[in-house]
Amino acid sequence: MRTVDLIRKKRDGDELTTQEIEFLVQNYTRGVIPDYQMAAFLMAVYYSNMSENEVTSLTLAMLNSGQRLDLSDLDGAKVAKHSTGGVGDKTSLILGPIAAAAGVVVPKITGRGLGYTGGTLDKLESIPGFRTNLSIDEFRAVLKQHNLCFAGASSQIAPADKKMYALRDSTASVESIPLIAASIMSKKLAEGIDGLVLDVKVGSGAFMKKRTEARKLAQLMVAIGRKMSKRVQAVLTDMDQPLGYAVGNALEIMEVSQTLQNQGPADLTQLSVELAARMIHLANRSQALEAAREQAAQILASGEAFNKFQQVIAAQGGNPEVLNQFELLPNATGAREILSPRAGYVTRINAEDIGLAAGLLGASRDTMERQIDPAVGIILERKVGDRVPAGGRLCTLYHTDETHVDEAAQLVEDAFHISATAPEPRELVLEVIQ
Amino acid sequence: MRTVDLIRKKRDGDELTTQEIEFLVQNYTRGVIPDYQMAAFLMAVYYSNMSENEVTSLTLAMLNSGQRLDLSDLDGAKVAKHSTGGVGDKTSLILGPIAAAAGVVVPKITGRGLGYTGGTLDKLESIPGFRTNLSIDEFRAVLKQHNLCFAGASSQIAPADKKMYALRDSTASVESIPLIAASIMSKKLAEGIDGLVLDVKVGSGAFMKKRTEARKLAQLMVAIGRKMSKRVQAVLTDMDQPLGYAVGNALEIMEVSQTLQNQGPADLTQLSVELAARMIHLANRSQALEAAREQAAQILASGEAFNKFQQVIAAQGGNPEVLNQFELLPNATGAREILSPRAGYVTRINAEDIGLAAGLLGASRDTMERQIDPAVGIILERKVGDRVPAGGRLCTLYHTDETHVDEAAQLVEDAFHISATAPEPRELVLEVIQ
Repeated sequence: MRTVDLIRKKRDGDELTTQEIEFLVQNYTRGVIPDYQMAAFLMAVYYSNMSENEVTSLTLAMLNSGQRLDLSDLDGAKVAKHSTGGVGDKTSLILGPIAAAAGVVVPKITGRGLGYTGGTLDKLESIPGFRTNLSIDEFRAVLKQHNLCFAGASSQIAPADKKMYALRDSTASVESIPLIAASIMSKKLAEGIDGLVLDVKVGSGAFMKKRTEARKLAQLMVAIGRKMSKRVQAVLTDMDQPLGYAVGNALEIMEVSQTLQNQGPADLTQLSVELAARMIHLANRSQALEAAREQAAQILASGEAFNKFQQVIAAQGGNPEVLNQFELLPNATGAREILSPRAGYVTRINAEDIGLAAGLLGASRDTMERQIDPAVGIILERKVGDRVPAGGRLCTLYHTDETHVDEAAQLVEDAFHISATAPEPRELVLEVIQ
Repeated sequence: MRTVDLIRKKRDGDELTTQEIEFLVQNYTRGVIPDYQMAAFLMAVYYSNMSENEVTSLTLAMLNSGQRLDLSDLDGAKVAKHSTGGVGDKTSLILGPIAAAAGVVVPKITGRGLGYTGGTLDKLESIPGFRTNLSIDEFRAVLKQHNLCFAGASSQIAPADKKMYALRDSTASVESIPLIAASIMSKKLAEGIDGLVLDVKVGSGAFMKKRTEARKLAQLMVAIGRKMSKRVQAVLTDMDQPLGYAVGNALEIMEVSQTLQNQGPADLTQLSVELAARMIHLANRSQALEAAREQAAQILASGEAFNKFQQVIAAQGGNPEVLNQFELLPNATGAREILSPRAGYVTRINAEDIGLAAGLLGASRDTMERQIDPAVGIILERKVGDRVPAGGRLCTLYHTDETHVDEAAQLVEDAFHISATAPEPRELVLEVIQ
């Protein structure tokens, strides 16, 4: 088998066999196939696409390039949730405690943010003392005791994905649906799960700008999961404006706390309960989805989820009192209010620009080397559909360094569209693929 | 300017600027842009194509990556000929002497064969003593005295092409019309020429299997030449069967000698005169093409071209007597006749398979490291349209080593299609692009 012949085969739109895909992934991971051949292959996949069988083979080959977590000795169904990432998306920190309190084992192995979306790890690390680089044994112990644990991905998990992703990033083949699907699924399937709920974000603040593309990705990931005999559902959700009001690491922890105390934003609460309900339903399929929704809502209302999150924070070395006393979290030193230039309705908030503005303040990183500032970010005061008077507050920027504040303020001002007529109401959950 | 952004721009089908293409080629040649980024870029070009402006910029950037030959001190117009390569194509060794005898300066910088087609250098080197690795001064001196010189490409000429071609070869982006056009034209334009006749081969024995593809390539190369203010014509010619009867290095030198003595195959003679006439016409455009054809035919008939070739062989260290005494050339030690299984007409001779069979005998190389055997090859006894009785000879394989003879014989037998009815006659010159 020659690599150049496999590149040509894919280039010409033919289907590769499982053996051929294994040959490519194994030899690339071992350094036998050079970067330049893999780069050409990945670009050929970008254009020629892959069949369901090919993507499943690719996922399996990437999964087999590293270790798999074995959680079979833990009681209860293991159900994970993965989001393709969006601005202000902190649902993991709400639905995780809800599902765990309902008896679902929720292993949450997660990444850092890159680009304009924040990562769950970065948010958690704004809690003083919180540790995410756990050993396998520590991870297992917290999971066994609390049904929930948050940890960073080990370099032993799907190393092929790590190497291929870095290559795609520097050769413009990131935006390929089969490659995205295999990348996500290889990492999730390495977590020893029985079920998976996928939150595929669509809109200006998401990686997938178009619903048809998001649907394709969702369908492909659900199909891969099914071929691997896992229970997988995907929910397409709107990410045309940020989720909730808070964007920025410590600011989002505060909003999580409010939401777990039933004082959070309606959209964030609704989506967290919906995704948690689907996790509960996948863990115990004899329980109808409607009943799972009621259970999730009840666990949130009763404070059980709040208590669960405090226990997990404490178990991972963090101070659980941050959820009650926000002054224990890193706080910004300055604030800049953004006012509306005229009266009207907010018809659109460009989520990508809000994310980029938060990044300019230091809330996210554009390269993996950059340090983030946990204290900074943006609190929206108005969301789409809200009325605002002329000079009324649209949002507030929180900063610790003035350098990029003007630039961020301009970006945020332009991100808000104000119009005389109210916009059509939008659905948050667009569709479910299962 | 970031390389990844340029890859993405091309990937998305947008037109790159001259500056952007220069940035890519210059930095790749210098080793600043790594192979993996160039591999992804070239695959993106394979799929997204390039505009005429982009290909011209690419050609110029590749040309500027190395030295250019300056022949402006030589009297007379410099006109080169380039063939995209075909099985049994030895026209350069016939049209070169014809055009040179007509006063055209013909700098012939040429390559070795790779794959199933032979290279002009390999053919010439079957002549004992013939030297092709000349210094620039030696090349110039022979050209000044005889109007014709054959030499191998210097590594100083279009080094970007050399590096990019090797990368394309290992990443399956060879078959890209804009990349082929830029590769050919950057090397030809480095030869200090005023005009160029391109022989674009079409058919089973050529790189371009389809006429529409060959036409696109021809049009693109003519357009590039025009933008560079060169006189360029392209001729699309049939390569569905081998040209002439001989395939193999010394065997082709013998056929060249016969043709220069007016005893060569009709197709080879016709094409050589036609291409030589177009070179004469481009060198002196006041001379009508029809008059140039008459002049070329007359030079061939008079023996002037034969004499010219002998002079050039002598000037480059070879023994000119080989053209009269074939026993001075390397000769094979064994022969195998291939007989027709039945009576009928030859309707097709798959040229690629004839080339591959000659390669199995040792006439060409599949990697640049392999040595070729100048003595071996194939002499066809019948060509398309000829009648053959049952058991009549189709061709003879000449070998010095029995190892692959059975395999080659099988390939050749299958390459001949014999049918009860005569095929439609085919045109040799399919069309002219100017």
